[in-house]
Amino acid sequence: MTMGWHMVMGFEPSLIGCYIWDQNHSFEMVRNSRECVINVPTVDLGTKVVGIGYSSGRDIDKFAEFRLTAVPGTHVGAPLIEECYASFECKLNDAKLIPTYSMFVFEVVKAHVAVSPKYPRTMHYRGDGVFMLSGTKFRRLFKPQNL
Amino acid sequence: MTMGWHMVMGFEPSLIGCYIWDQNHSFEMVRNSRECVINVPTVDLGTKVVGIGYSSGRDIDKFAEFRLTAVPGTHVGAPLIEECYASFECKLNDAKLIPTYSMFVFEVVKAHVAVSPKYPRTMHYRGDGVFMLSGTKFRRLFKPQNL
Repeated sequence: MTMGWHMVMGFEPSLIGCYIWDQNHSFEMVRNSRECVINVPTVDLGTKVVGIGYSSGRDIDKFAEFRLTAVPGTHVGAPLIEECYASFECKLNDAKLIPTYSMFVFEVVKAHVAVSPKYPRTMHYRGDGVFMLSGTKFRRLFKPQNL
Repeated sequence: MTMGWHMVMGFEPSLIGCYIWDQNHSFEMVRNSRECVINVPTVDLGTKVVGIGYSSGRDIDKFAEFRLTAVPGTHVGAPLIEECYASFECKLNDAKLIPTYSMFVFEVVKAHVAVSPKYPRTMHYRGDGVFMLSGTKFRRLFKPQNL
């Protein structure tokens, strides 16, 4: 599935909160297996990202349909997507927020990240079919004389 | 305060989940008043954003120190920052996640957004003093023949 709402919730352990709509095919799969892989695509996969968001795993095999390569994980049964820049193997850390917020709190148990580029071109959803491409990296340190 | 971890959690009502560290001066202020304003700065305010993140309201008046203009809200007692692109007046909708996750679930009760530009240059924290500037906007609709 394509996911738009998520946030870091902690470093130790490494927690990520994810909203998964209860009508999504993934909802029960993840709730039952208590694990998943979060894959981070770059913008060259943009059309596939959107197509995956508009289709359901109830109807098609998305790996086949979108010509993506499933790679076995080392800590979870769910596969990684080889074409993605980063993949985070996750176990469900807290299911308590699911009934109220459809929110899954995952712990990252294994991270796979490409060595380069250091700052890939990622895509960020603004809503209504509009995305923001990740822009320039910059460093901004606190310089009191510079306010 | 400067805040890095947040996510949309719903549309109706409009909910935003925010992580506020329990050591922050803002933590008790927001927990007690049960309201806040979330202001969205553009990159021209970048040095102030970082300075605000590195200082505490226990020690200084940040509006004075960083030369920002407080504007009264219409639905909450907390002030808006006039120099920011957007300001969301919020009421605490759910305090139950605070003890476990330092997470405040706010409802946006009034939104103020500049009419232009439509896509401002915003800044997004990557960690370790590095930010990403918001990049190009693009539209990507699902075109099955184009996978």
